[in-house]
Amino acid sequence: MTDGTPDPLPDGLMDAFWDYEAALMSDDLAALDRLFAPGPATLRTDAAGTLVGHDQISAFRGGRGGAPRRTVVDIQVQVVDDGNALVVATTELARGGRGAQTQLWQRQRDGWVVTAAHVSVSPPAIDTRVWRVVGDPLVTGAEDGPLARETIAVKDLFAVAGQKVGAGSPAYLAAAPVETRTARAVQKLLDAGADVTGIARTDEFAWSLFGDNAHYGTPPNPHAPRRLSGGSTSGSATATSLGHTSIALGTDTGGSIRVPASWQGLWGIRTSRNAVARDGLLALAPTFDTVGWATRDPDLLARVGDVLLPPAPPPATSDVVLATDLLALAAPDVRAAIEEFARGWGNVVREPFDAHDLDAWRTTFTLVQSAEAWKQHATWVASRLHTLTPAVRGRFEAAARLDPAEVNAAAHSLTRLRLEIRHRVADRIVLLPTTPTVAPLPGGADQSLRETMLGLTSIAGIGGLPAVTVPLRTAEGLPCGVCLVAAPGRDRDLLALARTIPRPA
Amino acid sequence: MTDGTPDPLPDGLMDAFWDYEAALMSDDLAALDRLFAPGPATLRTDAAGTLVGHDQISAFRGGRGGAPRRTVVDIQVQVVDDGNALVVATTELARGGRGAQTQLWQRQRDGWVVTAAHVSVSPPAIDTRVWRVVGDPLVTGAEDGPLARETIAVKDLFAVAGQKVGAGSPAYLAAAPVETRTARAVQKLLDAGADVTGIARTDEFAWSLFGDNAHYGTPPNPHAPRRLSGGSTSGSATATSLGHTSIALGTDTGGSIRVPASWQGLWGIRTSRNAVARDGLLALAPTFDTVGWATRDPDLLARVGDVLLPPAPPPATSDVVLATDLLALAAPDVRAAIEEFARGWGNVVREPFDAHDLDAWRTTFTLVQSAEAWKQHATWVASRLHTLTPAVRGRFEAAARLDPAEVNAAAHSLTRLRLEIRHRVADRIVLLPTTPTVAPLPGGADQSLRETMLGLTSIAGIGGLPAVTVPLRTAEGLPCGVCLVAAPGRDRDLLALARTIPRPA
Repeated sequence: MTDGTPDPLPDGLMDAFWDYEAALMSDDLAALDRLFAPGPATLRTDAAGTLVGHDQISAFRGGRGGAPRRTVVDIQVQVVDDGNALVVATTELARGGRGAQTQLWQRQRDGWVVTAAHVSVSPPAIDTRVWRVVGDPLVTGAEDGPLARETIAVKDLFAVAGQKVGAGSPAYLAAAPVETRTARAVQKLLDAGADVTGIARTDEFAWSLFGDNAHYGTPPNPHAPRRLSGGSTSGSATATSLGHTSIALGTDTGGSIRVPASWQGLWGIRTSRNAVARDGLLALAPTFDTVGWATRDPDLLARVGDVLLPPAPPPATSDVVLATDLLALAAPDVRAAIEEFARGWGNVVREPFDAHDLDAWRTTFTLVQSAEAWKQHATWVASRLHTLTPAVRGRFEAAARLDPAEVNAAAHSLTRLRLEIRHRVADRIVLLPTTPTVAPLPGGADQSLRETMLGLTSIAGIGGLPAVTVPLRTAEGLPCGVCLVAAPGRDRDLLALARTIPRPA
Repeated sequence: MTDGTPDPLPDGLMDAFWDYEAALMSDDLAALDRLFAPGPATLRTDAAGTLVGHDQISAFRGGRGGAPRRTVVDIQVQVVDDGNALVVATTELARGGRGAQTQLWQRQRDGWVVTAAHVSVSPPAIDTRVWRVVGDPLVTGAEDGPLARETIAVKDLFAVAGQKVGAGSPAYLAAAPVETRTARAVQKLLDAGADVTGIARTDEFAWSLFGDNAHYGTPPNPHAPRRLSGGSTSGSATATSLGHTSIALGTDTGGSIRVPASWQGLWGIRTSRNAVARDGLLALAPTFDTVGWATRDPDLLARVGDVLLPPAPPPATSDVVLATDLLALAAPDVRAAIEEFARGWGNVVREPFDAHDLDAWRTTFTLVQSAEAWKQHATWVASRLHTLTPAVRGRFEAAARLDPAEVNAAAHSLTRLRLEIRHRVADRIVLLPTTPTVAPLPGGADQSLRETMLGLTSIAGIGGLPAVTVPLRTAEGLPCGVCLVAAPGRDRDLLALARTIPRPA
């Protein structure tokens, strides 16, 4: 071990340092708690963020199941005074790689304690919560084109020649053939000069909105640390939030682009029904399935649209309506962010969307979606329900039991509701919360949130409408989104409009 | 921005913090230097290691070309006293991802300065200095087998079905076909249960020993930060040092496993000539090319050998000889580490290898290698010399100009030298330095080091001998290696012997 400790050191400092190291290696939580300063000001920082306060730090340690085995190979100490010192240690991990740890120690009544720590370790080859495969690039796009130098995280539902489609299911992946052709949407982006960086995780069969993932681990949410990523385009969204790619390519059936975009502070679009070809895309519920994408800025969001969307007449100006009854479904912090956004826009009409039957809409949406998902996947899923995570398994099981008469009735309602929603939107642009809340902590991903969320997202789903989500922040700095919805085919209008919105700070 | 700053703060602290942030964003090196405490005790830590002293930190900043654009989104301050405070800032990077920065500030005569900083940023999707493509896994091995749960970083010279061979050359990669079969050695490891994690960088056409890489960036050396990785099996070795994989699969023509293993603290083997089939492997110089691998522990090194090596008679005991004249070629720190190792082993005979003609051996080796490399690659390289990095281009150009008579003479010498070396090794195990020095800093990778190194490595190369390198550390803690060489076919003997060596701490 090399050693940069000045001489003499404050009495007991290095003993405390080595006590801490021993406690870490034996995962002695009581000792670790004792060696971190009590109170709300204690800090622990790593690449995922800063934990503030002894309680948060203690809870984190309790949940992680121990630190990796390591050997201290270098120590540097800066003594502030007899009661305060900084210790910077370099470690080598038994699993390979190295770590670095900066600790500010303070002598308190019962001995030395850490008041702040900052920890780094060598990252893994890839973050397998985010990615299934990554290349430099995985697929090279055309040498030139409107998307040259852009990079794509492809949701693991699109065919990429030479790769399998995994659909977020290890069992499905294991049995999947290697694709010989590339999905049309991916190919168009490649032809426009973008590279495919890799294939990113999706929630299982894209049938979830939360991003929590029992198979591969939940992708992190870089802009709301320790909160859910949103799904089902979870890995692609995280990859774009992390700057791994500029474009998150995904799908949106019931919110699978809009939800992760809202929760991660991205711009996102769900396209009009059938506006972008779905060849080479594993379907969930074809009536609602759309190609969508998310980016960190609205210009690129629109430039991808220029490549993927059909031509359209030049943008028309429209009244902008804030749907007050839909806004009321959002939590106060999200509501406040949207109100502020609407005030900043100016000239926004406030009126209800008349969504008093939102529960019925959602139920209709869910019935048709479930019936189609079962039709789509029954052959494979029926004998493999045991391979699925509980929530998705539950949805498939419920879908298998649906009463055909009920499904038939829902399909009829759907046609009526579609017209009704289109009539209400008319030639206007309707603003509504993309999600009712900011990204929940893992414990907050419950059925009630899912239902409120689906109520909001199913409006564009049923209507076959384009929806662009604009990133906002709550007063506490957490991402949320406001959704711009318009008549079918007005995707480019919405993208053009999004470009004119002042960038949030 | 959220804010965890206590009130009141020491006078001028936050002004200094924001001055630093502004200087960082404008890459104002003079201001950054001024805001870091002068002297040898100042520290700057990131995932790559800790820089000690203002000079090192200043040189690092001067060389990196600016920090990524970022926005501070949270600040937490711990005040030690009126002259000392810790500031922990969370940042969001314009390129995506987030950062965290812990700074210990001290009020000095001319104002507040940072005495220690620890910086983290979200890592990229993959470290493209190390990897070309990574999967989870890229290729799944057999469900069970002696190498189940092991993972392989495949040097970008081996065919992997569905992937290209890039050979460390962007131009070669761009023109390469997708392989339809997997190289025999890789397939054997897959059949034994290991997974292929990915395809790792190689020095261009494997014709280098340093690992410095102008095409893709030099892979880091986790155990000797800021020093060279060694090559040409550079990416695989770094991947295994980092814990990305347990096995670095590569080749060794003139030291391409032994050198990175020595410099990165790994166990490594260059196998006997023709002991492991080279089907599906892009050749450099077939007379010397061998399959090799490196690991973090000797048990796995041997277990890979059990899969790849032909059966052999049970190990015989052998005299162990420390080649004193070869040892004398090593730098004092490496020599001392090897002497200590030999003392610990006990019963080591010290005698010269009689390598007074080492320069001639190396020249013979280089002539034959160059002639074969040209024969191997001329068709592709001749019209594409401009695509190569200067050193490798120089070697190919020299190879193209070789006098056939001289090559012929060298080939004859080679046969004689092979017998001579085998005769000297006989039934003994010869110890020699794997590399004459620890990993050099980038500036230290010169022709003289290359020649001394090749002199040492060419002994096994010319002899067609197996060579196992055992990781040692110098007194300063830097990795180096001692090489065990034996008669052709005694690969398993060496691996068995390596297993009995007490693990270095």
